[in-house]
Amino acid sequence: MIIIGIAGGTGSGKTTVVKKIAETLPPENVAVIPLDSYYNDTTNLTEEQRREINFDHPDAFDWKLLFEHIKQLRAGYAVAQPTYSYIECNRMKETIHVEPKPVMIIEGIMTLIKKNLRDLMDLKIFVDTDSDERLIRIIKRDVLERGRTAEMVMERYMAVLKPMHLEFIEPTKRYADIIIPQGGDNEKGISIIKKYILQAK
Amino acid sequence: MIIIGIAGGTGSGKTTVVKKIAETLPPENVAVIPLDSYYNDTTNLTEEQRREINFDHPDAFDWKLLFEHIKQLRAGYAVAQPTYSYIECNRMKETIHVEPKPVMIIEGIMTLIKKNLRDLMDLKIFVDTDSDERLIRIIKRDVLERGRTAEMVMERYMAVLKPMHLEFIEPTKRYADIIIPQGGDNEKGISIIKKYILQAK
Repeated sequence: MIIIGIAGGTGSGKTTVVKKIAETLPPENVAVIPLDSYYNDTTNLTEEQRREINFDHPDAFDWKLLFEHIKQLRAGYAVAQPTYSYIECNRMKETIHVEPKPVMIIEGIMTLIKKNLRDLMDLKIFVDTDSDERLIRIIKRDVLERGRTAEMVMERYMAVLKPMHLEFIEPTKRYADIIIPQGGDNEKGISIIKKYILQAK
Repeated sequence: MIIIGIAGGTGSGKTTVVKKIAETLPPENVAVIPLDSYYNDTTNLTEEQRREINFDHPDAFDWKLLFEHIKQLRAGYAVAQPTYSYIECNRMKETIHVEPKPVMIIEGIMTLIKKNLRDLMDLKIFVDTDSDERLIRIIKRDVLERGRTAEMVMERYMAVLKPMHLEFIEPTKRYADIIIPQGGDNEKGISIIKKYILQAK
C-alpha cells in the first residue's frame, strides 16, 4: 500500500490533482480520504459555539481519529469514515465504509501538519498555487456554490483564510517530498507523480 | 532526447540534484550543460569593467550562444561549449566538445528565466531550499574554497546575492513543472524525478 498526502491552500487545485492521479488507476485500487470528513464531532457544543468554529484552524479537525483510521487501513482493516454536515456544523450519523486499497490518498489543506500522520505517508505532495489565483477560484466557487457576494468572500479571505493559510498551511510546504506549482493545470507535474505511483505500486 | 532544466538559488543543492540524477544513467547517455560556462565573452572590456561584472545578474550570461547550442544539440549536432575563467573574468580559449546525448541537463541559477530556452525543455525543475540553509552552504563554501571570511560572505550575500535572488531567481519558480524542496537532501523528491526520466527515455 502507498499512502499519499496531498496538501495545499484553499483554491490551490488539490482536488483536481487528486482526481487526475486517481483517474490513472483502476477504481478498485484507489481510495481518497478527505481531511474535511474529519472535522470534530460538535455534539456537545451549543449552536452559538458551532457557529464560531474556525474551519481553517488545525483545532477544527479530529486528528486522533484520522490517525487511527490511516493506521487501521495501513494494517489492512476497513474503517467507518465519518461524514460532516456544514449546515449543522457537526458530524452526521452516517459513515462511509472505506476498504484498504493499494493507493490511499489523504487530501486536505493541512494533511502535512501532523508528524505522526506524515510518518505514515510514503509520498508527501504540496500543491502550490499563487495566492491571487487561489483567491479568484475561491471567489468564483463561493459566489456560484454558496450564494455569497464577491465582497463577502474577499472580506472572509482577508480576515480568516489568508492569516490561517500563512500560519498553518504555507509552513507545511517544507515537509513535502515534491511541490506541484500552479495546481490542477500543471499537466507535466501531475504526470511525473502519476508515473511514480504507477511504478511504485 | 529529453532536455531538462534545473534552476535554483546559489547554495540550493542544484549540483547535488544533478549529480544524483546523472548517476542513475549510463555516462554515455547524459550530458550536463552548466549555465556558468556561458558567462559573456569580455575580451572587449577593460580590467576594471570586468571587475564590476555582476555574476548574479541575467545580463552576465551569453543567452544567445546557450540557446544556439541547445538548439544544435537537440538537432543532433555536437557543440563547442565555452569555458570560463573566474580569475580573468573572461571566456577561455579552450572549448569542450559536447555530443548530443539522450538526456541533456542544463543546470544553473537562472536556467528557467528565458522563454525561448524554456520552450526547448521537456522538464523544468526548480530546487527550492530555505534561504538560511542556502546562506550556510554559501558561507561554508566561500570560506573553504575561496578563502573569504564569513563576514565578507555575509556582506556580499546581503548586497548582491539576496537581492538578485529575489529579483531574478525566485520568480522563475513559477515556470517549473515540479519543485524539489530542501535541495540535495531530498531523496524521495529526487527519486521521483529519476523514475520519470528513466521511463521517458
